[in-house]
This record gives sequence, structure tokens and C-alpha cells, in this order.
Amino acid sequence: MRSNSHIVCGKRPTDYSKEKEQKCHPGGGPGTLKVVGLGPGHSDHMTPAVKQALARAEVIVGYKRYIGLIDPCLLVGKEVLSTGMRGEMERCRDALAMALDGKETVLVSSGDPGIYAMAGLVFEMMESKNLFDRLDVEIIPGLPALSAAAALLGAPLMHDFAVVSLSDLLTPWEHIRKRILMALESDFVLVIYNPRSKKRVWQIKEVLGLITQYRGKTTPIGIVRNAARPGQKVWIVQAGDVDEGTLDMLTIVIVGNSCTRLIGKRMVTPRGYMEKYGEK
Amino acid sequence: MRSNSHIVCGKRPTDYSKEKEQKCHPGGGPGTLKVVGLGPGHSDHMTPAVKQALARAEVIVGYKRYIGLIDPCLLVGKEVLSTGMRGEMERCRDALAMALDGKETVLVSSGDPGIYAMAGLVFEMMESKNLFDRLDVEIIPGLPALSAAAALLGAPLMHDFAVVSLSDLLTPWEHIRKRILMALESDFVLVIYNPRSKKRVWQIKEVLGLITQYRGKTTPIGIVRNAARPGQKVWIVQAGDVDEGTLDMLTIVIVGNSCTRLIGKRMVTPRGYMEKYGEK
Repeated sequence: MRSNSHIVCGKRPTDYSKEKEQKCHPGGGPGTLKVVGLGPGHSDHMTPAVKQALARAEVIVGYKRYIGLIDPCLLVGKEVLSTGMRGEMERCRDALAMALDGKETVLVSSGDPGIYAMAGLVFEMMESKNLFDRLDVEIIPGLPALSAAAALLGAPLMHDFAVVSLSDLLTPWEHIRKRILMALESDFVLVIYNPRSKKRVWQIKEVLGLITQYRGKTTPIGIVRNAARPGQKVWIVQAGDVDEGTLDMLTIVIVGNSCTRLIGKRMVTPRGYMEKYGEK
Repeated sequence: MRSNSHIVCGKRPTDYSKEKEQKCHPGGGPGTLKVVGLGPGHSDHMTPAVKQALARAEVIVGYKRYIGLIDPCLLVGKEVLSTGMRGEMERCRDALAMALDGKETVLVSSGDPGIYAMAGLVFEMMESKNLFDRLDVEIIPGLPALSAAAALLGAPLMHDFAVVSLSDLLTPWEHIRKRILMALESDFVLVIYNPRSKKRVWQIKEVLGLITQYRGKTTPIGIVRNAARPGQKVWIVQAGDVDEGTLDMLTIVIVGNSCTRLIGKRMVTPRGYMEKYGEK
């Protein structure tokens, strides 16, 4: 699945075993790996800190689809290492090796690198390879998908919310299910990442069943696919009317709590200001 | 508490009652109120979409402290309406009145306007004043405080998390407490907004007690005050060692789940990649 860049085909990253006796950075001090979040996709939502890191990078490492979100001008003359889906371990290894090799290296995620993304794995791999004396890591946050989706829907996250990924690749389904149940029972707004994949289709059915059971068929559900990037779609429907075919790994689902309602075609969870302070 | 800008002292916003017979926008179509998120504060984390909205604005409305986060160059020549704490209703009314008056108006929040901020109130007030035919609203998301805080701590939000505000001004304490309990019981990472104010001091004590009871005294707790803006402070401590004096309304607290641990001085919640795919 791995493909070196179509921009500049770089040499393979250094093997760690050969690195052990070298200084990791020409200057002698530790290098820095930057782990950055591109935001939802459109450059209008990419922070200056992230753009600057990309502009200064010698090497950019990321999932193919996310590399595709970057303005091609920012990639020119750079070594770009992109891998396919489920290539997280490889991307992380590549990025660490490049940074250890003394190169200005940026590892990209879409959204926020700190939410269901690459930041954690970088620290874990540094620990397993004992790299903390040789490399610094800087996490540069990006606009998370949940913010981009909420803005398009209206204001569903005005009150307490719980964020759950339905991917059971690394988490037992029973844990995920328990969290969904607890969130429904205690009236959290519920944000669902990775609601459905080509192979994983029954979990969202079960969750929609729980939502109907705990909150009723008319609960407002916001669905945003490809928030703030090409192919953007936004739906607000009732829990009983969700078309599961609209859901995939590029979709965020936001489930209203008991107060969430439609206001002027937007999905809004009132925080209570109007009830307390509004003109009667 | 209200103070008009020191930049340009504008006339008072139009009264709604006088507006009824007027076209709301010179062009005849509805005007647009933009509700934008400044992000945590530093302009490196403010998105281009937000900067552009501020640059184009004729009127900028916001809480005094947040107006202070904006590059003064972006305020020159503009009408700036700022109010003090708890002036949400007034700010919202002012912003709607200005937009109805045909002025390019931007209502600012720090962080993301869609998370415990102004976006919801705007829709509610538009509903109560029946403004949907006369005014459009655009929510322009900003980097939320939870992302800025997580990036400074390491990678605590790699797995499912629940976000709860301890402010009981608009929400009964029993609801808040129940959500905290449920989040602890189902092993969510817990993000706490508004942990403590000058007058509201006992709630965080109770929450810390629950954390110790459900997760133990050694649970890692990340505390970030003024994330990515002047006065930034970052602490990672154990649940038994939290100094409540460090907590206030400018602080985000992130409570680890059963997997969260310190890795190279950072707070990380592993998602499970290393366990499943790591070299043994």
C-alpha cells in the first residue's frame, strides 16, 4: 500500500538499527517531529501554525487521502511519504526515522491529531524505541471534525457531549456499547466517529436501536459527511429515519440530547440562557 | 458592565421594534451574522476563515477578554461592542441588531463558538424574535480549548471522551454529577470545562472525590490554564495531588481513563495500536 511521493521520490527512511550510534541531528541537539492536524480539509480552516510547519518541512508523512488535502504548492520540493488505510504503524515509523535522520519532518492527520489520530501512537512508539532523549515531539492541534460538523449543523454541542468511535478494530464492542448506553442514559449529546465502514455495518444499526429506545424516534440526528471539504453533505433527520447508507468512515453523526431541537432548520441544543434570562 | 469600544465608539444598536418595517439589508436580501471562534488566543491558531471574517467586519461584538485576544490591527476603524462576564444575552442582542441594521457583523467567542459558547443562543434569540426570514447566520468554527489543551499535555484524547462543564448556573448540579459519574463508570476520558470559579468552589472537590473513588488516587490529571495564550500553564499530576487553587474558569482539566499514563512526561491515552501491531 505504501507509495513514495509523486512530488519528490525520497530515499527510504533510515533503519533504526543503523541509527543507534549516530547523532540524531546535525546540530547535536535532538530533532523535533511535528505532528499536525490539517483540520477538516479546506485551507480556510487550516491554522497558520500548521501551514508554517508544512512550509518548513523537508519531509511530510501521512495517509494518502490526507496528503491530498494539502495545497500542492506546500508539497513542492519535499519528500512526501504516503501510505494507505491502516498504515498507521508504518507512517509513524517512517516519520520517526526521518526526524531521527535530522530532517524537518511533519506527520499529518486530518482534523485534530490528538483526537482518534496519530499523536498517541507517536509517543508510544518513541517509548518502545527509547527515543525520548534523541527526539522532541510537538503536537500542533487542528480543527477537529466534530467542530466542523457542529458548525454546519447549527449548534448541537452547546451542552455536555460524549465522543465515541464505533470502530471495534482496537476496542471490544462491549466497551463501546457500554459507553453509548451510559451517554444516552445521562443525556449527553453524543458525537459518533467512524459510524460505519464497508465491512462493519451492524454496529450502527444496534446504536440507532439504542437511540430510539432511550431517546425516541424523533430525536434529532445530524449527519455530516466530508465536512468542509469537497463532497460535503449535511443532513438533519429523526432517529427513526436515518439512512444507514449515508454513513461511512468520512461521516460524523451527532445525536441530540433531550433538549436538542430544530430551530430555523438548524440543530440546536439550548444551554438554558433563554429559559433563565429571555424576555417572557 | 457594558462598554463601547475604545477603537470607534459606535451608536447604539437599532431597536428591533423600529426595525420591523425596514429592509434589513441595503441590497434587499437578508444580512448575515457571522459567529466565529477565535481559537485559544494566539493568532497562530486562528483559522484564515475567522481572520477573513474579522477583516471584513464593520462591527465586532464580544466579551471584553476575548476582544483582547484579537490582533488590534484587525479592530482599527471598526465598531467594537464589548461587554463583561455574563453579558451573553446583551452581546447576542447587540450582534443581531447590528446585523439587521445591514452591517457586516461578527460575534466572537474564544475557542469554538459551538462548544459552550454563543452559537446556540444566537439561534434561540433569532427564533424568539422571529428573525429567520430577515437574517442568515454562519457559524465559523474555531480551535476548541479541549484541542489546544490536549496538544500541550500530549495525547490524552486518543480514545472516547466525555466533555462536561461544572458551571451549575444553567444546569442543576445533580445532572452534572450524574454525567460525571456515568463517564467515570464507563471509562471515558473526561474533559472538564469551567472547573471552578471564585464563588463556585465545592463542585470540583466533589468531582475529585468521585475520580479518586472510581479511578484511584494515581489517575493522571492534565491541567491547562490559558492554553496557547499569555499566561499559559500546564500541569500533569495525580488525582490525589490536584491543587484546586490552580483551577478557574480559564482552565481545562482532562482526567485520564484506565489506560491513560505518562509517556516521556506526556499524558497519553493509548488507543491500542502498539498492543495489537507493535513489535514484541
